[in-house]
Amino acid sequence: MSVRLTLATVSKVIRVGSSLNLVSQNRKIMSSAAEFPYGKVFAKIDELKPQFIDTLGKAVKIPAVSGDESLRPMVVRKAHFLVGELQRIGFTDIQLKHLGTQPPPVEDENLQLPPVVLSRYGNDPKKKTIVVYGHYDVQPASFEDGWDTEPFELYVDEEKQLMRARGSTDDTGPVIGWFNVVQAYKESGFELPVNLITCFEGMEESGSIGLDGLIVEEADKYFKGTDAVCISDNYWLGTTKPVLTYGLRGCNYYQTTIEGPGADLHSGIFGGIIAEPMVDLVQVLGSLVDSKGKILIDGVDDMVAPLTEKEAKLYDGIDFTLDDLNAASGSDTSLYKNPKDILMHRWRYPSLSLHGVEGAFSSQGAKTVVPAKVHGKFSIRTVPDMDSEKLNKLVIAHCDKVFSKLESPNTCKTELIHDGDYWISDPNNTSFTAASKATELVYGVSPDLTREGGSIPITLTFEQQLKTSVLLLPMGRGDDGAHSVNEKLDISNYVNGMKTMAAYLHYYAVAEGK
Amino acid sequence: MSVRLTLATVSKVIRVGSSLNLVSQNRKIMSSAAEFPYGKVFAKIDELKPQFIDTLGKAVKIPAVSGDESLRPMVVRKAHFLVGELQRIGFTDIQLKHLGTQPPPVEDENLQLPPVVLSRYGNDPKKKTIVVYGHYDVQPASFEDGWDTEPFELYVDEEKQLMRARGSTDDTGPVIGWFNVVQAYKESGFELPVNLITCFEGMEESGSIGLDGLIVEEADKYFKGTDAVCISDNYWLGTTKPVLTYGLRGCNYYQTTIEGPGADLHSGIFGGIIAEPMVDLVQVLGSLVDSKGKILIDGVDDMVAPLTEKEAKLYDGIDFTLDDLNAASGSDTSLYKNPKDILMHRWRYPSLSLHGVEGAFSSQGAKTVVPAKVHGKFSIRTVPDMDSEKLNKLVIAHCDKVFSKLESPNTCKTELIHDGDYWISDPNNTSFTAASKATELVYGVSPDLTREGGSIPITLTFEQQLKTSVLLLPMGRGDDGAHSVNEKLDISNYVNGMKTMAAYLHYYAVAEGK
Repeated sequence: MSVRLTLATVSKVIRVGSSLNLVSQNRKIMSSAAEFPYGKVFAKIDELKPQFIDTLGKAVKIPAVSGDESLRPMVVRKAHFLVGELQRIGFTDIQLKHLGTQPPPVEDENLQLPPVVLSRYGNDPKKKTIVVYGHYDVQPASFEDGWDTEPFELYVDEEKQLMRARGSTDDTGPVIGWFNVVQAYKESGFELPVNLITCFEGMEESGSIGLDGLIVEEADKYFKGTDAVCISDNYWLGTTKPVLTYGLRGCNYYQTTIEGPGADLHSGIFGGIIAEPMVDLVQVLGSLVDSKGKILIDGVDDMVAPLTEKEAKLYDGIDFTLDDLNAASGSDTSLYKNPKDILMHRWRYPSLSLHGVEGAFSSQGAKTVVPAKVHGKFSIRTVPDMDSEKLNKLVIAHCDKVFSKLESPNTCKTELIHDGDYWISDPNNTSFTAASKATELVYGVSPDLTREGGSIPITLTFEQQLKTSVLLLPMGRGDDGAHSVNEKLDISNYVNGMKTMAAYLHYYAVAEGK
Repeated sequence: MSVRLTLATVSKVIRVGSSLNLVSQNRKIMSSAAEFPYGKVFAKIDELKPQFIDTLGKAVKIPAVSGDESLRPMVVRKAHFLVGELQRIGFTDIQLKHLGTQPPPVEDENLQLPPVVLSRYGNDPKKKTIVVYGHYDVQPASFEDGWDTEPFELYVDEEKQLMRARGSTDDTGPVIGWFNVVQAYKESGFELPVNLITCFEGMEESGSIGLDGLIVEEADKYFKGTDAVCISDNYWLGTTKPVLTYGLRGCNYYQTTIEGPGADLHSGIFGGIIAEPMVDLVQVLGSLVDSKGKILIDGVDDMVAPLTEKEAKLYDGIDFTLDDLNAASGSDTSLYKNPKDILMHRWRYPSLSLHGVEGAFSSQGAKTVVPAKVHGKFSIRTVPDMDSEKLNKLVIAHCDKVFSKLESPNTCKTELIHDGDYWISDPNNTSFTAASKATELVYGVSPDLTREGGSIPITLTFEQQLKTSVLLLPMGRGDDGAHSVNEKLDISNYVNGMKTMAAYLHYYAVAEGK
C-alpha cells in the first residue's frame, strides 16, 4: 500500500500542481485575516499538534469493535475515555445515553447497546447551535489480516507523515478533531463562535442501532434549538482535492443462513452422502450479482430513479480519473473505464457486495470439515428512489426461490441485519456555503461537491427530526483504507481538517440564515 | 449432540440387543482362556484405566494443530511428550526423525515439518514384527466454534462415560492406547508376543507431508523385517458394532485463489465499481458440485471403476441404516435413503466438499468489507480407479475455464494443497483374521468388514514400501465427531480398544504366515 500511495501522491502533485496551491493557500490566509478573525486558533492547532496526535493514539488503543459482542466492554470503555476528554476540555452537561438491549440476532440476549455521548460547549442564546456527530466504534481488525503494524496501536510514519490505526480516519480521528478544535479556541483566548453539541455514538459500524430513537426522543430536549448538523465521517474523493458531500447511498445488510447437520462433520465420512450447507450457500450467493456488478434480483433496478440530462451534467466537472480509482483500489480491476460511469455507479446506482461466510472454514491450511451451519453475508447499497422495505422483500423472496429450486433437505433463512437509508441534500445552503469558505481558506481551492457510495445511516434522521440541514465535512482522503487493512489518516489531513472545522464554525456563525 | 447420542444409543440397544451381547461376551472371554493366554493383561488394563485416562488428558492438552503454522511449536512439544512416555514405558531406540522444511504454500518459508517418532519394544528375531502407526497432530479447534468445554482440555463425562477433547478419538486416543497396551503387558509380567515398532507422525491432518519419503528411506533400515502394519486411525461405522476396515478413499485438497484489489476495500466506496473477488469465487465454487452431490467437473466420473454385481452384493449384509447416518449427522439431510446407496457413496464413489473461504469476512456481525484476496477451499475424495494427477489437471482446467468465462479483471489460480491416494486391501489375510479374532474375544461379535470414506494417506505407502499387509483397526465410534466440535471417545471404546489391540498382537503372533 505504501508504494501505491507514494505513486498516487506523486502523480497528483505533477498533475494538479499542489505545491503551487500551497503557496496560494498561505497568501490567502494572510489576505483573509479580516474575514477570518481567528488566525491564532490555526497557530494553536499547529502548536498543539504533538498533543493532538497523542490523544488520538490513546483513543484508538481501545478496540471498540461494535460488531464483535465479546468486545462490547471495550466500546463502553472508549465512551468513558471520551467523557474524560470532554471534562478535561471544559464541555458541560455530559450525558451517557443508554439505549437498552441489542435486538436479535445476538449471541447474548442481554447485550447492552453502547451509550451515546452527549455534551455541550457554550449555551448562549445569541449564538447559533451546531450539533457535531461522529462515532467512536470501529470496524473489526487484527494484525493477522495483513496489517503492517498492530491495528490498535497508532503508528506514526514520520517519513510519509501519516498515522496508521483502526479508527484513525473512520471515525476516531474526526471525533478527536472536534475536541481539539474546541481546546484550540479556548487556549487561544477566544470564545467559540457557536454553541456546540456533541453526539457521538458507538454502533455506527453495526447499523447505528438505537440512535434513531434517541434523536427522536431528544429532538426537543437536548437538541432543542439546533441550527445545523455537521457530520465528519466521510472522505475526499481522491487524495489531494477537498470535497463537501451532499449525498450518500444507503446500505441494507443481509445474512443468508443455511443449516443442515447438527454439528460440523468430517468430509471423508460424510462427503457425498449428506447435503452440504456450503454447497447450497454458494448457489444462493452466486445468484445475487454477476461478475460485471449487475444485480440479478428481479425488481431492484426498477426502483432506481432514472438519470436526467441535468443530473448527468453534474458529473462532468469533477476532478476524478480512472487512475485515481486504480490508485485507491491498488489494482486495475475497475468495472468501468469512464470516470463519469465510475462516479455514477459509486453514487447513484445500487451495488451488491459479497462480504464473506461465517461458520465455514476460514483459516490458513486445509481443514476437511463439512460446515454444519453457514451464514453468507452480503449488502446492497441503496439509492433514490429505492424503497428499503420493498427491497428486503425482493431479496428474501429471491433467496428463498433460488434455494427452493435446489431441493435441498437443509434449511435456508435470509434476514436483514441492519439498514440505513440513502440521503440527498442541497449543496448551496448556508451550512455548505460556510464549509466551502472554510475549505477555501485552509486549502486554497474550492471543494468539489460530491456524493458518496458509503452510508451514514443517521444523516437522514438528523435532517428530519431536528428539521435542520446536515453537512458532511470530510477530514480524510479517498485512499485512507477505512474498513480495510492499514487504515490511516495523513497528519496534514488531521491538522487541516481541524482548521477547516474551526473556520466552518466561524463562517456559519456569521452567515445570515440557518 | 448429547441428546442425539443418547437417543441413538437407546435405539441401538433395542434394535440389536447389545445387552445380550454383553452377556455372551463375558461367557466368551471365560471360555477362550485357553486360546488367549493373557487374561491378566485385560485385568491390568481395567486396573490402570484411571492412569490411562490421565495420560490421554496430558497428551490432548497440547494444541498440536499441524494446519496452523503458529502452533507448530506445540506439535513439536507433543512429539517430545510422546518421547517421554515411550522412555517411561521402556521403549528403546527412540528417534525423532526430522523431515526438513515444509514446502509452499506456507507463510514462513523456513517452517520445519514436525518430527516422526520412531521407537521399538523388543527385538527378538524369533518374533514377528508389527509396525503401529498413528498421528499426534490434530485438526484445528477453538471453544468459540461451539464446543461445550475447552477443546484442549480432556473433559470426562462420568454420566455418559465418555472423554471429550480435540484428538480424543483422532488420533491421540489410539496412539496413547498402544503405549498403554505395552505397559499393561509389562506390568502383568508378560513379554510382548511380537516386536513392536512405533511410527507416529505430526502432519497427518495436513497431508502427511514428508512421511512418504521417510518410509522409503527407512524401509530397509528402521522398518527392516516388518511383518505387518497396523493403523488405528479410523472409526466404527455406527455406534455399537465393531468393524475392520479394508478400504479408504483418497483425498485431493484444492485451493482456488482469486485476487483483485491491493487491500480489502470499503463496500460503500468501491461497491459496484470494482470487480469483487468474492463474486468471482462463488461462481467458481458453485460450478464444482450440485446440491445433490453430483460432481460437475467433466471427466471425473469417467475415472471411477464400474460397480460389478459381485461388489454390489458386499454391501448387502452390513449393519447400517439411514437412522445411523441421521444420528451421526444430527440431521435428516441424507442425499440417499437406501443404506446401500449411502455406503456406496461413502466408500466407492468420489465426493466433492466445499470447506470454506479464507480471506473473506468470517466473523459474527456485519462488516462491509470487499475482500481483496480470497481462497476457496474444497476437496475431492478419490476412489478406484481415479488417477490423482489426471484429476488435478481436470480440476484446475475446470476452474480456469469457469473463471475465464466471467471475463473478470481479477486473477484466479487453483492449486493442489495436498493429496493422498485411495487404498484397498484383502480382508481375509493373516492380519485381518487375527484382528477379527481379537474383536470377537473382546466384543463377542464378528466385526463388519467395511471401507471408509475418509483417507489415511500413508496406508498405501506402508503397503508398497514395506511390502506387507496393512490393517485398519479402529478404536472409536462413528459418532465420535472427528474433525468436528465436541470430538469424543467413549471410555468403553478406549478400554476395549486397548484390549483388542492387546489380543490382536497375540493372535497375529501365533498365526501361520504373515
